[in-house]
Amino acid sequence: MFEKIAILGLGNLGTPIAESLIESGFDVTVWNRSSSKTDVLVNKGAHRAGHPMEAVEAGGIVFSVLADDSAVEETFSEALLGKLGVNGIHVSMSTISPECARRLSQRHQLHGVSYVAAPIFARPEAVKAKVGNICLSGSVAAKERVKPILQTFVKGIYDFGEDPGAANVVKLAGNFMIAASLEMMGEAFTMAEKNGISRQSIYEMLSQTLFAAPIFQNYGKIVAHHNYEPVAFSLPLGLKDINLTLKTASDSNVPMPMADLIRNRFISAIAKGRSDLDWGALAKGASDDAGL
Amino acid sequence: MFEKIAILGLGNLGTPIAESLIESGFDVTVWNRSSSKTDVLVNKGAHRAGHPMEAVEAGGIVFSVLADDSAVEETFSEALLGKLGVNGIHVSMSTISPECARRLSQRHQLHGVSYVAAPIFARPEAVKAKVGNICLSGSVAAKERVKPILQTFVKGIYDFGEDPGAANVVKLAGNFMIAASLEMMGEAFTMAEKNGISRQSIYEMLSQTLFAAPIFQNYGKIVAHHNYEPVAFSLPLGLKDINLTLKTASDSNVPMPMADLIRNRFISAIAKGRSDLDWGALAKGASDDAGL
Repeated sequence: MFEKIAILGLGNLGTPIAESLIESGFDVTVWNRSSSKTDVLVNKGAHRAGHPMEAVEAGGIVFSVLADDSAVEETFSEALLGKLGVNGIHVSMSTISPECARRLSQRHQLHGVSYVAAPIFARPEAVKAKVGNICLSGSVAAKERVKPILQTFVKGIYDFGEDPGAANVVKLAGNFMIAASLEMMGEAFTMAEKNGISRQSIYEMLSQTLFAAPIFQNYGKIVAHHNYEPVAFSLPLGLKDINLTLKTASDSNVPMPMADLIRNRFISAIAKGRSDLDWGALAKGASDDAGL
Repeated sequence: MFEKIAILGLGNLGTPIAESLIESGFDVTVWNRSSSKTDVLVNKGAHRAGHPMEAVEAGGIVFSVLADDSAVEETFSEALLGKLGVNGIHVSMSTISPECARRLSQRHQLHGVSYVAAPIFARPEAVKAKVGNICLSGSVAAKERVKPILQTFVKGIYDFGEDPGAANVVKLAGNFMIAASLEMMGEAFTMAEKNGISRQSIYEMLSQTLFAAPIFQNYGKIVAHHNYEPVAFSLPLGLKDINLTLKTASDSNVPMPMADLIRNRFISAIAKGRSDLDWGALAKGASDDAGL
Protein backbone atom coordinates (compact mmCIF):
# COMPACT_ATOMS: atom_id res chain seq x y z
CA MET A 1 0.00 0.00 0.00
CA PHE A 2 2.93 2.39 0.41
CA GLU A 3 2.83 3.84 -3.07
CA LYS A 4 4.88 6.80 -4.19
CA ILE A 5 2.58 9.79 -4.46
CA ALA A 6 3.10 13.13 -6.17
CA ILE A 7 1.05 16.09 -4.94
CA LEU A 8 0.65 19.09 -7.21
CA GLY A 9 -0.77 22.17 -5.48
CA LEU A 10 -0.13 23.07 -1.83
CA GLY A 11 -2.89 25.49 -0.96
CA ASN A 12 -5.21 25.42 2.07
CA LEU A 13 -6.17 21.82 1.29
CA GLY A 14 -3.14 20.46 -0.55
CA THR A 15 -0.80 21.13 2.36
CA PRO A 16 -2.74 19.23 5.08
CA ILE A 17 -3.44 16.39 2.61
CA ALA A 18 0.30 16.10 1.88
CA GLU A 19 1.11 16.21 5.61
CA SER A 20 -1.38 13.48 6.30
CA LEU A 21 0.03 11.23 3.56
CA ILE A 22 3.59 11.77 4.84
CA GLU A 23 2.47 10.87 8.38
CA SER A 24 0.85 7.70 7.00
CA GLY A 25 4.21 6.62 5.61
CA PHE A 26 3.78 7.28 1.90
CA ASP A 27 6.74 8.38 -0.19
CA VAL A 28 5.52 11.87 -1.12
CA THR A 29 6.88 14.31 -3.69
CA VAL A 30 5.45 17.83 -3.65
CA TRP A 31 5.29 20.65 -6.12
CA ASN A 32 3.72 24.08 -5.88
CA ARG A 33 3.79 27.08 -8.20
CA SER A 34 5.38 29.21 -5.48
CA SER A 35 8.01 26.89 -4.10
CA SER A 36 8.16 28.44 -0.60
CA LYS A 37 5.16 26.36 0.36
CA THR A 38 7.13 23.16 -0.10
CA ASP A 39 9.63 23.92 2.72
CA VAL A 40 7.52 22.80 5.65
CA LEU A 41 6.67 19.53 3.87
CA VAL A 42 10.28 18.83 2.88
CA ASN A 43 11.18 19.23 6.56
CA LYS A 44 8.62 16.54 7.32
CA GLY A 45 10.12 14.14 4.81
CA ALA A 46 8.68 15.03 1.40
CA HIS A 47 10.76 15.25 -1.76
CA ARG A 48 10.71 18.61 -3.51
CA ALA A 49 10.02 18.86 -7.24
CA GLY A 50 10.94 22.06 -9.08
CA HIS A 51 8.47 21.32 -11.88
CA PRO A 52 5.42 19.03 -12.19
CA MET A 53 7.40 16.92 -14.69
CA GLU A 54 9.94 16.15 -11.97
CA ALA A 55 7.20 15.08 -9.55
CA VAL A 56 5.62 12.33 -11.64
CA GLU A 57 6.95 8.94 -12.65
CA ALA A 58 5.77 6.32 -15.15
CA GLY A 59 2.75 4.38 -13.89
CA GLY A 60 2.60 6.42 -10.68
CA ILE A 61 -0.11 8.23 -8.78
CA VAL A 62 -0.46 12.01 -8.92
CA PHE A 63 -2.84 14.05 -6.76
CA SER A 64 -3.82 17.53 -7.94
CA VAL A 65 -5.25 20.08 -5.53
CA LEU A 66 -5.29 23.13 -7.77
CA ALA A 67 -7.40 26.27 -7.94
CA ASP A 68 -9.54 25.89 -11.05
CA ASP A 69 -10.18 24.34 -14.47
CA SER A 70 -7.37 26.12 -16.27
CA ALA A 71 -4.76 25.37 -13.57
CA VAL A 72 -5.53 21.64 -13.87
CA GLU A 73 -5.57 21.70 -17.69
CA GLU A 74 -2.29 23.60 -17.90
CA THR A 75 -0.51 21.46 -15.30
CA PHE A 76 -1.58 18.20 -16.92
CA SER A 77 0.14 18.92 -20.21
CA GLU A 78 0.66 16.36 -22.96
CA ALA A 79 4.28 16.04 -21.83
CA LEU A 80 3.27 15.30 -18.23
CA LEU A 81 0.62 12.79 -19.27
CA GLY A 82 3.16 11.18 -21.59
CA LYS A 83 5.59 10.70 -18.72
CA LEU A 84 2.87 9.43 -16.35
CA GLY A 85 1.76 6.99 -19.08
CA VAL A 86 0.16 3.55 -18.93
CA ASN A 87 -1.10 2.60 -15.45
CA GLY A 88 -0.60 6.15 -14.26
CA ILE A 89 -3.45 7.65 -12.23
CA HIS A 90 -4.39 11.27 -11.76
CA VAL A 91 -6.49 11.80 -8.60
CA SER A 92 -8.09 15.17 -9.28
CA MET A 93 -9.27 16.73 -6.00
CA SER A 94 -9.94 20.27 -7.21
CA THR A 95 -13.48 21.61 -7.53
CA ILE A 96 -13.62 21.95 -11.30
CA SER A 97 -16.42 21.79 -13.84
CA PRO A 98 -17.79 18.34 -14.72
CA GLU A 99 -17.27 19.30 -18.35
CA CYS A 100 -13.56 19.95 -17.74
CA ALA A 101 -13.25 16.64 -15.84
CA ARG A 102 -14.75 14.75 -18.81
CA ARG A 103 -12.45 16.54 -21.26
CA LEU A 104 -9.39 15.83 -19.08
CA SER A 105 -10.39 12.19 -18.72
CA GLN A 106 -10.49 11.74 -22.50
CA ARG A 107 -7.13 13.41 -22.93
CA HIS A 108 -5.66 11.20 -20.17
CA GLN A 109 -6.93 8.05 -21.87
CA LEU A 110 -4.92 8.82 -24.99
CA HIS A 111 -1.79 8.36 -22.85
CA GLY A 112 -3.10 5.32 -20.95
CA VAL A 113 -3.55 7.45 -17.79
CA SER A 114 -6.67 7.00 -15.62
CA TYR A 115 -8.45 10.14 -14.44
CA VAL A 116 -10.16 9.74 -11.05
CA ALA A 117 -12.34 12.63 -9.92
CA ALA A 118 -12.08 12.97 -6.14
CA PRO A 119 -13.25 16.41 -5.02
CA ILE A 120 -13.25 16.72 -1.24
CA PHE A 121 -15.70 18.35 1.15
CA ALA A 122 -13.46 19.65 3.92
CA ARG A 123 -12.17 22.86 5.35
CA PRO A 124 -8.42 22.69 6.21
CA GLU A 125 -9.10 21.83 9.87
CA ALA A 126 -11.39 18.99 8.75
CA VAL A 127 -8.58 17.54 6.63
CA LYS A 128 -6.27 17.67 9.67
CA ALA A 129 -8.93 15.95 11.78
CA LYS A 130 -9.49 13.37 9.00
CA VAL A 131 -13.24 14.04 8.90
CA GLY A 132 -13.50 15.19 5.28
CA ASN A 133 -15.63 13.39 2.70
CA ILE A 134 -14.72 12.60 -0.88
CA CYS A 135 -16.97 12.21 -3.92
CA LEU A 136 -15.41 9.71 -6.28
CA SER A 137 -15.94 8.86 -9.94
CA GLY A 138 -13.92 7.28 -12.73
CA SER A 139 -12.81 3.84 -13.87
CA VAL A 140 -13.38 0.99 -11.43
CA ALA A 141 -9.81 -0.34 -11.43
CA ALA A 142 -8.25 3.08 -10.83
CA LYS A 143 -10.70 3.84 -8.01
CA GLU A 144 -9.83 0.55 -6.31
CA ARG A 145 -6.13 1.40 -6.39
CA VAL A 146 -6.57 4.89 -4.90
CA LYS A 147 -9.30 4.15 -2.30
CA PRO A 148 -6.87 2.73 0.31
CA ILE A 149 -4.79 5.89 -0.01
CA LEU A 150 -7.79 8.21 0.30
CA GLN A 151 -9.09 6.24 3.28
CA THR A 152 -6.00 7.21 5.28
CA PHE A 153 -7.09 10.87 5.45
CA VAL A 154 -10.90 11.13 5.08
CA LYS A 155 -13.97 9.89 6.93
CA GLY A 156 -16.17 8.91 4.00
CA ILE A 157 -15.79 8.05 0.32
CA TYR A 158 -18.92 8.18 -1.85
CA ASP A 159 -18.71 6.53 -5.25
CA PHE A 160 -20.77 8.06 -8.05
CA GLY A 161 -19.88 5.64 -10.81
CA GLU A 162 -17.70 5.81 -13.88
CA ASP A 163 -18.61 9.19 -15.41
CA PRO A 164 -15.53 11.32 -14.59
CA GLY A 165 -17.82 14.38 -14.33
CA ALA A 166 -20.23 12.87 -11.77
CA ALA A 167 -18.19 13.48 -8.62
CA ASN A 168 -17.82 17.15 -9.56
CA VAL A 169 -21.57 17.53 -10.16
CA VAL A 170 -22.18 16.33 -6.59
CA LYS A 171 -19.41 18.56 -5.26
CA LEU A 172 -20.90 21.61 -7.00
CA ALA A 173 -24.40 20.72 -5.77
CA GLY A 174 -23.04 20.43 -2.23
CA ASN A 175 -21.14 23.71 -2.41
CA PHE A 176 -24.30 25.40 -3.70
CA MET A 177 -26.18 23.98 -0.70
CA ILE A 178 -23.55 25.28 1.71
CA ALA A 179 -23.70 28.76 0.17
CA ALA A 180 -27.51 28.68 0.22
CA SER A 181 -27.35 27.71 3.90
CA LEU A 182 -25.22 30.79 4.55
CA GLU A 183 -27.83 33.04 2.92
CA MET A 184 -30.65 31.22 4.72
CA MET A 185 -29.02 31.78 8.10
CA GLY A 186 -28.15 35.37 7.18
CA GLU A 187 -31.81 36.16 6.47
CA ALA A 188 -33.21 34.22 9.46
CA PHE A 189 -30.72 35.56 12.00
CA THR A 190 -31.23 39.13 10.74
CA MET A 191 -35.01 38.87 11.13
CA ALA A 192 -34.45 37.57 14.68
CA GLU A 193 -31.95 40.32 15.48
CA LYS A 194 -34.29 43.09 14.34
CA ASN A 195 -37.01 41.56 16.52
CA GLY A 196 -34.88 41.75 19.66
CA ILE A 197 -33.59 38.16 19.64
CA SER A 198 -29.84 37.63 19.81
CA ARG A 199 -28.24 35.95 16.78
CA GLN A 200 -26.44 33.60 19.17
CA SER A 201 -29.68 32.35 20.77
CA ILE A 202 -31.47 31.55 17.49
CA TYR A 203 -28.25 29.97 16.17
CA GLU A 204 -28.01 27.75 19.26
CA MET A 205 -31.61 26.62 19.07
CA LEU A 206 -31.61 25.75 15.38
CA SER A 207 -28.13 24.19 15.23
CA GLN A 208 -28.91 21.97 18.22
CA THR A 209 -32.24 20.73 16.88
CA LEU A 210 -33.64 20.71 13.33
CA PHE A 211 -30.35 21.84 11.78
CA ALA A 212 -27.94 19.86 13.96
CA ALA A 213 -25.45 19.25 11.13
CA PRO A 214 -21.82 20.36 10.64
CA ILE A 215 -22.69 23.06 8.10
CA PHE A 216 -25.11 24.81 10.43
CA GLN A 217 -23.05 24.27 13.57
CA ASN A 218 -19.77 25.49 12.10
CA TYR A 219 -20.89 28.16 9.63
CA GLY A 220 -23.80 29.17 11.88
CA LYS A 221 -21.35 30.32 14.55
CA ILE A 222 -19.44 32.32 11.92
CA VAL A 223 -22.64 33.93 10.63
CA ALA A 224 -24.09 34.56 14.11
CA HIS A 225 -21.03 36.58 15.11
CA HIS A 226 -19.95 37.90 11.69
CA ASN A 227 -16.56 36.23 12.23
CA TYR A 228 -15.32 36.01 8.68
CA GLU A 229 -11.62 35.67 9.47
CA PRO A 230 -9.40 33.68 9.22
CA VAL A 231 -10.22 32.69 5.66
CA ALA A 232 -10.57 28.95 5.05
CA PHE A 233 -12.28 29.42 1.68
CA SER A 234 -12.38 32.84 0.10
CA LEU A 235 -15.37 34.70 -1.38
CA PRO A 236 -13.87 34.76 -4.92
CA LEU A 237 -13.48 30.96 -4.79
CA GLY A 238 -17.12 30.73 -3.69
CA LEU A 239 -18.15 32.82 -6.70
CA LYS A 240 -16.04 30.59 -8.96
CA ASP A 241 -17.91 27.54 -7.65
CA ILE A 242 -21.43 28.98 -7.93
CA ASN A 243 -20.57 30.05 -11.50
CA LEU A 244 -19.55 26.44 -12.22
CA THR A 245 -22.80 25.23 -10.62
CA LEU A 246 -24.90 27.55 -12.78
CA LYS A 247 -22.94 26.66 -15.92
CA THR A 248 -23.45 22.94 -15.24
CA ALA A 249 -27.13 23.56 -14.50
CA SER A 250 -27.56 25.59 -17.68
CA ASP A 251 -25.77 22.98 -19.79
CA SER A 252 -28.26 20.38 -18.53
CA ASN A 253 -31.30 22.71 -18.75
CA VAL A 254 -31.91 23.08 -15.02
CA PRO A 255 -33.08 26.51 -13.83
CA MET A 256 -31.78 27.14 -10.29
CA PRO A 257 -33.33 30.37 -9.00
CA MET A 258 -31.84 29.93 -5.54
CA ALA A 259 -28.37 29.53 -7.04
CA ASP A 260 -28.96 32.71 -9.08
CA LEU A 261 -29.74 34.58 -5.88
CA ILE A 262 -26.59 33.21 -4.22
CA ARG A 263 -24.47 34.23 -7.19
CA ASN A 264 -25.67 37.80 -6.90
CA ARG A 265 -24.84 37.77 -3.17
CA PHE A 266 -21.27 36.72 -4.00
CA ILE A 267 -20.93 39.42 -6.64
CA SER A 268 -22.25 42.03 -4.22
CA ALA A 269 -19.92 40.89 -1.42
CA ILE A 270 -16.94 41.23 -3.77
CA ALA A 271 -18.21 44.63 -4.97
CA LYS A 272 -18.27 45.72 -1.31
CA GLY A 273 -14.58 44.86 -0.92
CA ARG A 274 -14.98 41.59 0.98
CA SER A 275 -12.74 39.44 -1.24
CA ASP A 276 -10.32 38.92 1.63
CA LEU A 277 -12.97 37.40 3.91
CA ASP A 278 -14.14 33.82 4.25
CA TRP A 279 -17.07 32.97 1.96
CA GLY A 280 -19.26 32.90 5.08
CA ALA A 281 -19.33 36.69 4.62
CA LEU A 282 -21.92 36.04 1.90
CA ALA A 283 -24.37 36.14 4.83
CA LYS A 284 -23.52 39.78 5.55
CA GLY A 285 -25.65 40.82 2.57
CA ALA A 286 -28.87 40.22 4.52
CA SER A 287 -27.59 42.42 7.38
CA ASP A 288 -26.57 45.18 4.95
CA ASP A 289 -29.97 45.11 3.27
CA ALA A 290 -31.65 45.47 6.66
CA GLY A 291 -29.61 48.59 7.43
CA LEU A 292 -27.50 46.90 10.11
CA MET B 1 -47.46 18.54 39.00
CA PHE B 2 -50.66 16.86 37.89
CA GLU B 3 -52.49 20.00 36.83
CA LYS B 4 -55.81 20.02 35.04
CA ILE B 5 -55.18 20.95 31.43
CA ALA B 6 -57.61 22.07 28.74
CA ILE B 7 -56.61 21.53 25.12
CA LEU B 8 -58.32 23.55 22.40
CA GLY B 9 -57.71 22.27 18.88
CA LEU B 10 -57.19 18.61 17.96
CA GLY B 11 -55.49 18.71 14.58
CA ASN B 12 -52.39 16.82 13.46
CA LEU B 13 -50.44 18.17 16.44
CA GLY B 14 -53.15 18.79 19.05
CA THR B 15 -54.24 15.15 19.09
CA PRO B 16 -50.83 13.56 19.82
CA ILE B 17 -50.08 16.30 22.37
CA ALA B 18 -53.37 15.55 24.17
CA GLU B 19 -52.66 11.80 24.06
CA SER B 20 -49.23 12.31 25.51
CA LEU B 21 -50.56 14.46 28.38
CA ILE B 22 -53.27 11.87 29.16
CA GLU B 23 -50.62 9.12 29.22
CA SER B 24 -48.52 11.23 31.59
CA GLY B 25 -51.43 11.28 34.05
CA PHE B 26 -52.75 14.82 33.60
CA ASP B 27 -56.48 15.52 33.96
CA VAL B 28 -57.19 16.57 30.37
CA THR B 29 -60.27 18.25 28.91
CA VAL B 30 -60.45 18.50 25.12
CA TRP B 31 -62.38 20.66 22.70
CA ASN B 32 -62.33 20.77 18.91
CA ARG B 33 -64.48 22.67 16.41
CA SER B 34 -65.60 19.40 14.83
CA SER B 35 -66.37 17.28 17.86
CA SER B 36 -65.78 13.91 16.18
CA LYS B 37 -62.07 14.31 16.82
CA THR B 38 -62.63 14.21 20.57
CA ASP B 39 -63.95 10.59 20.61
CA VAL B 40 -60.60 8.80 20.53
CA LEU B 41 -59.28 10.99 23.34
CA VAL B 42 -62.40 10.56 25.50
CA ASN B 43 -61.91 6.80 25.14
CA LYS B 44 -58.39 7.28 26.52
CA GLY B 45 -59.67 9.18 29.55
CA ALA B 46 -60.11 12.81 28.48
CA HIS B 47 -63.14 14.91 29.38
CA ARG B 48 -65.11 16.28 26.44
CA ALA B 49 -66.07 19.97 26.28
CA GLY B 50 -68.82 21.08 23.90
CA HIS B 51 -67.50 24.65 23.84
CA PRO B 52 -64.17 26.29 24.77
CA MET B 53 -65.95 27.99 27.70
CA GLU B 54 -66.72 24.54 29.17
CA ALA B 55 -63.09 23.46 28.86
CA VAL B 56 -61.48 26.20 30.94
CA GLU B 57 -61.62 26.85 34.66
CA ALA B 58 -60.55 29.79 36.82
CA GLY B 59 -56.79 29.95 37.32
CA GLY B 60 -56.27 26.90 35.11
CA ILE B 61 -53.99 26.08 32.21
CA VAL B 62 -55.24 26.07 28.62
CA PHE B 63 -53.23 24.86 25.62
CA SER B 64 -54.24 26.07 22.18
CA VAL B 65 -53.13 24.22 19.04
CA LEU B 66 -55.16 26.09 16.43
CA ALA B 67 -54.70 26.83 12.75
CA ASP B 68 -53.95 30.54 12.55
CA ASP B 69 -54.11 34.03 14.05
CA SER B 70 -57.86 34.47 13.69
CA ALA B 71 -58.69 31.04 15.14
CA VAL B 72 -56.70 31.89 18.28
CA GLU B 73 -58.16 35.40 18.55
CA GLU B 74 -61.74 34.19 18.12
CA THR B 75 -61.38 31.27 20.53
CA PHE B 76 -59.81 33.41 23.26
CA SER B 77 -62.81 35.73 23.57
CA GLU B 78 -63.29 38.24 26.35
CA ALA B 79 -65.74 35.81 27.96
CA LEU B 80 -63.24 32.95 27.94
CA LEU B 81 -60.42 35.11 29.28
CA GLY B 82 -62.79 36.40 31.98
CA LYS B 83 -63.53 32.83 33.10
CA LEU B 84 -59.84 31.81 32.98
CA GLY B 85 -59.02 34.91 35.05
CA VAL B 86 -56.24 35.65 37.55
CA ASN B 87 -53.48 32.99 37.60
CA GLY B 88 -54.87 31.47 34.43
CA ILE B 89 -52.29 30.58 31.75
CA HIS B 90 -52.76 30.25 28.03
CA VAL B 91 -50.02 28.12 26.43
CA SER B 92 -50.27 29.13 22.78
CA MET B 93 -48.65 26.47 20.59
CA SER B 94 -49.92 27.58 17.18
CA THR B 95 -47.61 29.14 14.61
CA ILE B 96 -49.09 32.63 14.59
CA SER B 97 -47.66 36.07 13.89
CA PRO B 98 -45.48 37.65 16.59
CA GLU B 99 -47.71 40.72 16.25
CA CYS B 100 -50.81 38.67 17.04
CA ALA B 101 -49.05 37.06 20.03
CA ARG B 102 -48.17 40.48 21.44
CA ARG B 103 -51.75 41.71 20.92
CA LEU B 104 -53.19 38.59 22.56
CA SER B 105 -50.79 38.91 25.50
CA GLN B 106 -51.98 42.46 26.22
CA ARG B 107 -55.63 41.42 26.06
CA HIS B 108 -54.91 38.47 28.37
CA GLN B 109 -53.25 40.76 30.92
CA LEU B 110 -56.43 42.81 31.28
CA HIS B 111 -58.02 39.67 32.74
CA GLY B 112 -55.02 38.63 34.84
CA VAL B 113 -54.27 35.77 32.42
CA SER B 114 -50.66 35.00 31.41
CA TYR B 115 -49.96 34.37 27.74
CA VAL B 116 -47.08 31.95 27.11
CA ALA B 117 -45.95 31.56 23.50
CA ALA B 118 -44.87 27.94 22.94
CA PRO B 119 -44.81 27.11 19.23
CA ILE B 120 -43.47 23.63 18.59
CA PHE B 121 -41.15 22.24 15.91
CA ALA B 122 -42.48 18.74 15.34
CA ARG B 123 -44.26 16.68 12.76
CA PRO B 124 -46.99 14.47 14.30
CA GLU B 125 -44.70 11.41 14.50
CA ALA B 126 -42.10 13.53 16.31
CA VAL B 127 -44.68 14.51 18.92
CA LYS B 128 -45.50 10.82 19.45
CA ALA B 129 -41.78 10.02 19.77
CA LYS B 130 -41.36 13.00 22.19
CA VAL B 131 -38.55 14.48 20.11
CA GLY B 132 -40.17 17.83 19.31
CA ASN B 133 -38.67 21.16 20.34
CA ILE B 134 -40.49 24.16 21.77
CA CYS B 135 -39.62 27.85 21.52
CA LEU B 136 -40.86 29.60 24.64
CA SER B 137 -41.48 33.24 25.55
CA GLY B 138 -43.63 35.13 28.04
CA SER B 139 -43.62 35.99 31.75
CA VAL B 140 -41.07 34.18 33.89
CA ALA B 141 -43.54 32.88 36.51
CA ALA B 142 -45.96 31.48 33.94
CA LYS B 143 -43.12 29.79 32.01
CA GLU B 144 -41.89 28.13 35.22
CA ARG B 145 -45.36 26.70 35.88
CA VAL B 146 -45.78 25.25 32.39
CA LYS B 147 -42.24 23.98 31.75
CA PRO B 148 -42.68 20.73 33.75
CA ILE B 149 -45.80 19.99 31.70
CA LEU B 150 -44.08 20.70 28.37
CA GLN B 151 -41.07 18.61 29.39
CA THR B 152 -43.28 15.51 29.51
CA PHE B 153 -43.74 15.51 25.75
CA VAL B 154 -40.81 17.31 24.05
CA LYS B 155 -37.07 16.88 23.82
CA GLY B 156 -35.95 20.50 24.13
CA ILE B 157 -37.35 23.80 25.40
CA TYR B 158 -35.61 26.99 24.27
CA ASP B 159 -36.44 30.16 26.21
CA PHE B 160 -36.40 33.43 24.24
CA GLY B 161 -37.25 35.80 27.08
CA GLU B 162 -40.33 37.75 28.05
CA ASP B 163 -41.47 39.26 24.72
CA PRO B 164 -44.57 37.18 23.89
CA GLY B 165 -43.78 37.58 20.18
CA ALA B 166 -40.19 36.30 20.38
CA ALA B 167 -40.91 32.56 20.31
CA ASN B 168 -43.01 33.01 17.18
CA VAL B 169 -40.27 35.00 15.44
CA VAL B 170 -37.93 32.04 15.96
CA LYS B 171 -40.59 29.57 14.88
CA LEU B 172 -41.21 31.53 11.66
CA ALA B 173 -37.46 31.82 11.00
CA GLY B 174 -37.13 28.06 11.48
CA ASN B 175 -40.07 27.25 9.21
CA PHE B 176 -38.58 29.54 6.55
CA MET B 177 -35.30 27.62 6.86
CA ILE B 178 -37.08 24.29 6.47
CA ALA B 179 -38.91 25.51 3.35
CA ALA B 180 -35.67 26.97 1.95
CA SER B 181 -34.00 23.58 2.56
CA LEU B 182 -36.73 21.93 0.49
CA GLU B 183 -36.06 24.28 -2.43
CA MET B 184 -32.30 23.87 -2.01
CA MET B 185 -32.58 20.09 -2.21
CA GLY B 186 -35.06 20.33 -5.08
CA GLU B 187 -32.59 22.35 -7.15
CA ALA B 188 -29.50 20.31 -6.19
CA PHE B 189 -31.13 16.91 -6.70
CA THR B 190 -32.56 18.00 -10.05
CA MET B 191 -29.17 19.13 -11.30
CA ALA B 192 -27.74 15.76 -10.22
CA GLU B 193 -30.59 13.83 -11.86
CA LYS B 194 -30.15 15.61 -15.18
CA ASN B 195 -26.44 14.77 -15.05
CA GLY B 196 -27.08 11.05 -14.68
CA ILE B 197 -26.74 10.82 -10.88
CA SER B 198 -29.62 9.24 -8.96
CA ARG B 199 -31.48 11.51 -6.53
CA GLN B 200 -31.12 8.78 -3.89
CA SER B 201 -27.32 8.67 -4.14
CA ILE B 202 -26.79 12.44 -3.80
CA TYR B 203 -29.38 12.51 -0.98
CA GLU B 204 -27.51 9.75 0.87
CA MET B 205 -24.13 11.40 0.54
CA LEU B 206 -25.22 14.86 1.66
CA SER B 207 -27.58 13.76 4.45
CA GLN B 208 -24.92 11.46 5.91
CA THR B 209 -22.18 14.09 5.89
CA LEU B 210 -22.37 17.89 5.69
CA PHE B 211 -26.13 17.96 6.07
CA ALA B 212 -26.56 15.16 8.61
CA ALA B 213 -29.50 16.83 10.38
CA PRO B 214 -33.15 15.77 10.82
CA ILE B 215 -34.46 18.27 8.24
CA PHE B 216 -32.21 16.92 5.47
CA GLN B 217 -32.50 13.29 6.48
CA ASN B 218 -36.30 13.26 6.77
CA TYR B 219 -37.35 15.77 4.12
CA GLY B 220 -34.46 14.76 1.87
CA LYS B 221 -35.92 11.28 1.52
CA ILE B 222 -39.32 12.79 0.65
CA VAL B 223 -37.75 15.11 -1.95
CA ALA B 224 -35.44 12.44 -3.40
CA HIS B 225 -38.40 10.18 -4.17
CA HIS B 226 -41.15 12.80 -4.64
CA ASN B 227 -43.13 11.09 -1.85
CA TYR B 228 -45.46 13.89 -0.83
CA GLU B 229 -48.12 11.76 0.83
CA PRO B 230 -49.29 11.26 3.55
CA VAL B 231 -49.59 14.92 4.46
CA ALA B 232 -48.06 15.89 7.81
CA PHE B 233 -48.12 19.62 7.03
CA SER B 234 -49.97 20.86 3.99
CA LEU B 235 -48.77 23.24 1.28
CA PRO B 236 -51.40 25.90 2.11
CA LEU B 237 -50.20 25.91 5.75
CA GLY B 238 -46.66 26.34 4.46
CA LEU B 239 -47.78 29.36 2.41
CA LYS B 240 -49.53 30.77 5.49
CA ASP B 241 -46.29 30.53 7.44
CA ILE B 242 -44.02 32.03 4.79
CA ASN B 243 -46.53 34.89 4.47
CA LEU B 244 -46.23 35.44 8.23
CA THR B 245 -42.43 35.32 7.94
CA LEU B 246 -42.42 37.95 5.20
CA LYS B 247 -44.94 40.14 7.07
CA THR B 248 -42.79 39.97 10.21
CA ALA B 249 -39.67 40.69 8.15
CA SER B 250 -41.33 43.61 6.40
CA ASP B 251 -42.61 45.05 9.70
CA SER B 252 -39.04 45.07 10.99
CA ASN B 253 -37.51 46.28 7.69
CA VAL B 254 -35.70 43.07 6.79
CA PRO B 255 -35.60 42.18 3.07
CA MET B 256 -35.57 38.37 2.67
CA PRO B 257 -35.04 37.56 -1.02
CA MET B 258 -34.77 33.83 -0.35
CA ALA B 259 -38.09 33.88 1.50
CA ASP B 260 -39.64 35.76 -1.46
CA LEU B 261 -38.47 32.98 -3.77
CA ILE B 262 -39.93 30.34 -1.45
CA ARG B 263 -43.25 32.16 -1.29
CA ASN B 264 -43.53 32.10 -5.07
CA ARG B 265 -42.76 28.37 -5.07
CA PHE B 266 -45.65 27.80 -2.62
CA ILE B 267 -48.02 29.89 -4.72
CA SER B 268 -47.01 28.01 -7.86
CA ALA B 269 -47.43 24.60 -6.17
CA ILE B 270 -50.95 25.58 -5.12
CA ALA B 271 -51.69 26.91 -8.61
CA LYS B 272 -50.65 23.50 -9.97
CA GLY B 273 -53.23 21.78 -7.78
CA ARG B 274 -50.88 20.42 -5.11
CA SER B 275 -52.77 21.74 -2.07
CA ASP B 276 -53.48 18.20 -0.92
CA LEU B 277 -49.80 17.26 -0.78
CA ASP B 278 -47.29 17.66 2.02
CA TRP B 279 -45.40 20.95 1.90
CA GLY B 280 -42.33 18.96 0.83
CA ALA B 281 -43.93 19.14 -2.65
CA LEU B 282 -42.57 22.69 -2.80
CA ALA B 283 -39.43 20.96 -4.11
CA LYS B 284 -41.28 19.68 -7.17
CA GLY B 285 -41.06 23.18 -8.70
CA ALA B 286 -37.39 22.68 -9.58
CA SER B 287 -38.20 19.41 -11.36
CA ASP B 288 -41.08 21.03 -13.27
CA ASP B 289 -38.86 23.90 -14.37
CA ALA B 290 -36.28 21.43 -15.67
CA GLY B 291 -38.90 19.68 -17.80
CA LEU B 292 -38.97 16.52 -15.69
